[in-house]
Amino acid sequence: MKWKVAILGATGAVGQRFIQLLHNHPWFEIEVLAASEKSAGKPYGKACNWILECDMPREVAEMPVVNIDVKSVEKAGNVDFVFSALPSDIAGPVEEEFAKTYPVFSKASAHRLEEDVPLLIPEVNPEHLELVKVQKERRRWDGFISTDPNCSTIQLAITLKPLMQFGLKKVIVSTMQALSGAGFPGVPSLSIIDNVLPYIPGEEEKIEQETLKILGKLHKGKVLSADIQVSASCNRVNVKDGHLECVFVELERKPSIEEVKETFKQFKGEPQKLKLPSAPENPIVVREELDRPQPRLDREEGKGMSVVVGRIREDRVLTIKYLCLGHNTIRGAAGAGLLSAELAAKKGYM
Amino acid sequence: MKWKVAILGATGAVGQRFIQLLHNHPWFEIEVLAASEKSAGKPYGKACNWILECDMPREVAEMPVVNIDVKSVEKAGNVDFVFSALPSDIAGPVEEEFAKTYPVFSKASAHRLEEDVPLLIPEVNPEHLELVKVQKERRRWDGFISTDPNCSTIQLAITLKPLMQFGLKKVIVSTMQALSGAGFPGVPSLSIIDNVLPYIPGEEEKIEQETLKILGKLHKGKVLSADIQVSASCNRVNVKDGHLECVFVELERKPSIEEVKETFKQFKGEPQKLKLPSAPENPIVVREELDRPQPRLDREEGKGMSVVVGRIREDRVLTIKYLCLGHNTIRGAAGAGLLSAELAAKKGYM
Amino acid sequence: MKWKVAILGATGAVGQRFIQLLHNHPWFEIEVLAASEKSAGKPYGKACNWILECDMPREVAEMPVVNIDVKSVEKAGNVDFVFSALPSDIAGPVEEEFAKTYPVFSKASAHRLEEDVPLLIPEVNPEHLELVKVQKERRRWDGFISTDPNCSTIQLAITLKPLMQFGLKKVIVSTMQALSGAGFPGVPSLSIIDNVLPYIPGEEEKIEQETLKILGKLHKGKVLSADIQVSASCNRVNVKDGHLECVFVELERKPSIEEVKETFKQFKGEPQKLKLPSAPENPIVVREELDRPQPRLDREEGKGMSVVVGRIREDRVLTIKYLCLGHNTIRGAAGAGLLSAELAAKKGYM
Amino acid sequence: MKWKVAILGATGAVGQRFIQLLHNHPWFEIEVLAASEKSAGKPYGKACNWILECDMPREVAEMPVVNIDVKSVEKAGNVDFVFSALPSDIAGPVEEEFAKTYPVFSKASAHRLEEDVPLLIPEVNPEHLELVKVQKERRRWDGFISTDPNCSTIQLAITLKPLMQFGLKKVIVSTMQALSGAGFPGVPSLSIIDNVLPYIPGEEEKIEQETLKILGKLHKGKVLSADIQVSASCNRVNVKDGHLECVFVELERKPSIEEVKETFKQFKGEPQKLKLPSAPENPIVVREELDRPQPRLDREEGKGMSVVVGRIREDRVLTIKYLCLGHNTIRGAAGAGLLSAELAAKKGYM
Repeated sequence: MKWKVAILGATGAVGQRFIQLLHNHPWFEIEVLAASEKSAGKPYGKACNWILECDMPREVAEMPVVNIDVKSVEKAGNVDFVFSALPSDIAGPVEEEFAKTYPVFSKASAHRLEEDVPLLIPEVNPEHLELVKVQKERRRWDGFISTDPNCSTIQLAITLKPLMQFGLKKVIVSTMQALSGAGFPGVPSLSIIDNVLPYIPGEEEKIEQETLKILGKLHKGKVLSADIQVSASCNRVNVKDGHLECVFVELERKPSIEEVKETFKQFKGEPQKLKLPSAPENPIVVREELDRPQPRLDREEGKGMSVVVGRIREDRVLTIKYLCLGHNTIRGAAGAGLLSAELAAKKGYM
Repeated sequence: MKWKVAILGATGAVGQRFIQLLHNHPWFEIEVLAASEKSAGKPYGKACNWILECDMPREVAEMPVVNIDVKSVEKAGNVDFVFSALPSDIAGPVEEEFAKTYPVFSKASAHRLEEDVPLLIPEVNPEHLELVKVQKERRRWDGFISTDPNCSTIQLAITLKPLMQFGLKKVIVSTMQALSGAGFPGVPSLSIIDNVLPYIPGEEEKIEQETLKILGKLHKGKVLSADIQVSASCNRVNVKDGHLECVFVELERKPSIEEVKETFKQFKGEPQKLKLPSAPENPIVVREELDRPQPRLDREEGKGMSVVVGRIREDRVLTIKYLCLGHNTIRGAAGAGLLSAELAAKKGYM
Repeated sequence: MKWKVAILGATGAVGQRFIQLLHNHPWFEIEVLAASEKSAGKPYGKACNWILECDMPREVAEMPVVNIDVKSVEKAGNVDFVFSALPSDIAGPVEEEFAKTYPVFSKASAHRLEEDVPLLIPEVNPEHLELVKVQKERRRWDGFISTDPNCSTIQLAITLKPLMQFGLKKVIVSTMQALSGAGFPGVPSLSIIDNVLPYIPGEEEKIEQETLKILGKLHKGKVLSADIQVSASCNRVNVKDGHLECVFVELERKPSIEEVKETFKQFKGEPQKLKLPSAPENPIVVREELDRPQPRLDREEGKGMSVVVGRIREDRVLTIKYLCLGHNTIRGAAGAGLLSAELAAKKGYM
Repeated sequence: MKWKVAILGATGAVGQRFIQLLHNHPWFEIEVLAASEKSAGKPYGKACNWILECDMPREVAEMPVVNIDVKSVEKAGNVDFVFSALPSDIAGPVEEEFAKTYPVFSKASAHRLEEDVPLLIPEVNPEHLELVKVQKERRRWDGFISTDPNCSTIQLAITLKPLMQFGLKKVIVSTMQALSGAGFPGVPSLSIIDNVLPYIPGEEEKIEQETLKILGKLHKGKVLSADIQVSASCNRVNVKDGHLECVFVELERKPSIEEVKETFKQFKGEPQKLKLPSAPENPIVVREELDRPQPRLDREEGKGMSVVVGRIREDRVLTIKYLCLGHNTIRGAAGAGLLSAELAAKKGYM
């Protein structure tokens, strides 16, 4: 018996990844596909402009798309929980409606920074999931909302977590982010050909704020922000998938490069211990070549769930610098949601 | 009467830019084109695989290419000085031979860090040109070598110079560099399509070392390194021309963003005062839009000689952050050489 | 005294090119900028997302955008004629309203195939402009509509015209069209990265039908379709500007390759004879290199108004084959409109 | 017991694909890796600049690379046959040396058009393999040479074969070929960014000549050229893998579009009947969408061994037109070699 799930925002770029990753999932199965009015009523195969290289799973093509409200979803099927891949501007109230009854795992930014909502990376802060108890009580909900961080934040935070043992103080990060991060249709080709866009609305603030919450300590039902400073400069480059980030960090202690490398390699989290289905064997993979990680060559590492780190070296200004790469629509989006739901399922939250 | 020049390495990517920029130059004219043995003896039009969008100047197509040794060049014409666009691995001894007789303005890295060789950006450290007096005396040369910094260093240093009044302490820079920076054939298309290369051999060290010399003070015939720390992370992106850099700086004083902006806008150097032919009206152009500078839209600013700065904002870790963009084969290469030679000519060094 | 013009659809990709090309035009000056309701009321600088590499002319940035109806345009200024860069789905009735009073030079496809509307390429069928006399009389209009062909048709037809002397019978053309042909935002970057799109809605039909009308003879106030067969296969490639076309033609006579080449080189049309301001010196430029024309290297030929032809060779199936390249938003759009208006002005139609 | 193979040219782009496809092959296993002197003596992992997205198989990384001569190969292992991925300019004599003893399956063009050498596509002309009997006898070799056609020819010929029943007369094809077809380093990124290259040396001639031999009849130990005319125009586009071709054909009979579509769908060849390990279930896959095939979306069809056809429609000049797409380094290169060897093995030629 599998848990039955509804996907809100099923026709978008992240929604499609959810469908791809849920295909043959051992614990979960798709019961309802929901999207905006424009798509509702059509079979998914007609409503969706499928943009992934793999073919759309056949059984999904025939499924009807329903409107993204609780009634329509409940009419369409009996679901155990919900993935939300809704655009952030409409996610807020819709997710709250669903959370009255269902666990909601959301990729949207709407609720990320609310005090009683977990901003979860299962390898980094699994204990934050306990916030949903506070949340359910305070809001008198049967369900709850758990959120995934922004794509560029997730991969960064995964690499920062093991560095905290060295006394993490400051982080400067400059990103080169993939086109798929902007959804579909997203970035016009005329804007990016022979070009870089040095601005992604809201992205720098997300990295700078979310990281503090993710790395913060849970204390008496609250998350105490981590005592670090983070600064980001975010760019869009002409790459399909895979965000690449140049990271400079200041550490209180001065570990050797070998020590840092080993720390990255040894890093395991709750999902690895619990052997969650979507957990990569190694959350962080270290490449030794001088010219790695590269988006096209490394984004599929660990089925897109590993973060690939390379070029770890001493820094003349702070302490060390390195590059990290993650698949933004798998580890940074749909895969993140899946892993969060798997953690919640295993821990008895559903 | 114009000064007559020889171009060493005339068939390469930078050599072609020299030819383009010297076409109709008011002070200088091309007298001799020199390149490696493979090209020597052929007319330039046959020897050169012209890669610029503009057509090759007709008069140049017919000129013979001679070998890059002093004898061959002297046999081919009477030159007043020399531009070197030679690959750094062969530039060293060849430039020294020429410098015994001629002023040599070099784009190669071979001599940049030598104590008595200027590493010149005419807007930033024009007084360093005086080093050639020491050099000529010490080496007993009639000519001299003056070098231009690395392309990614030049644009950075131009923006750092006006910030020194605020007490510049630390610089972290992450670059997204254009394909033309690697010359021709340079980066294979299979390596860069749908990709970013996170490593450019030697580039980070050049930025980290050269910047200190450029911003250093001339004192008793020596350059005292600037007392700042610089760290770089360099990447190659799928852009034809124009390096884009994310810069984070620490300043002793805390100027307002408006103050910094004004400082950039007001910045003028010796080339502007002397009205050198290749000097842009504004060495630094500040764009106010949220999403500028962009390589394709801004690289031609000031005929490729202005550095375009944008997104100046407060930094949570250091003091301020911003982006800067420069045309790497004009401001960062051939245009830099031209401006250096113009300064030397105006100042009576030739 | 210059003719005063209104541009309908001034904020779009083609509208922007009109503004660029009209800047400092010797005969015409911009009097009114009109666009859809969304933009009306704003200054052009705010209403328009300027996508060209050159900066927006300053005087234009301050001009108010008015709605695309006759009343609003007349209230905003006194215009002599109108350029229409409207999307084809709304161009039809709007252009007709304006044509009751003004000459309208339209880039839209709405009226192209109407019997009494010229489908004009000034070098190819300048005499078709006489159709407007029939049109004005029949429709009882003071103004008229003259249309420009589809971008991919224009460059093809220019090369076919001189071949008609050899008895042109059949044409097969396969195109590789630039992104800017789809307007802005146009093609999503996620659709075209590492890809080719083998379909452009309506494009093949346009080439196949329009070519027959353009090359047709004017006879007693009607255009008799040319007696040729045309087949097209149209593709979108990852190029900013410049459509490249592989052309295979069957000719009754078998001219030598040299003869064809000379015919292309010698070809001049009415705009060259009349020395119209936007007329390129050579409508067709022949490149001899094996690997030309190339979009990025050749699209600016003749300020974007020349068609560049290369690789003329014998064909094993039909008679000859060659490639042709044209700048799709200059020769294929705004420049085409300008040249048509210049012809009409010179010939006394306004 | 598997057949043991040597790969000549193992470090190049096609050699790497051979290694990838032979990994876990049910019939064949890699025994010797051979390459030019530059690589000989090094372990493969050091000698090879691996450019595929998948990681290099571990067991291969440790294998020594030997020089491409018979002695060195024989010293390194006992092989049953040889794959040649050598550059065409050196393939000729090297392959002949090996063929004295071993079956050689060659991707190089050196021997393709020789009278007694099969130019094999197992689905199209499996009977041509019998030519090796003539060859062995005439040349007194124990081994033989069998060649695969040029990549752009293979996918075209596969689609032409089923059309022969309608009386195939003429073929016009215009190609948009991927970067990987030029090997590595291949096309410089500066040449292809924002561009198309309208010329691939030798490519058009290969399509025009090889197609006639492939579709020809074997008669008394000779191949009689097919009585058709083929004309090609070949272009390089900014796509990593997957050649896309616009095909126009003249047929004696006029089948309906549905009939053609069915013919493509039903087409099976010897490899499908014999269930060869690398045979795709469907040599030709027909897509019904208006905008397919697309290189990035369709090149992996049938693990890169199917040719994807789309947009089959009537043609105004010839009879029908369509597009076809094939993975140029799998179906067009290493996969082709594998399938040929599998056919030869099954048929008892080794």
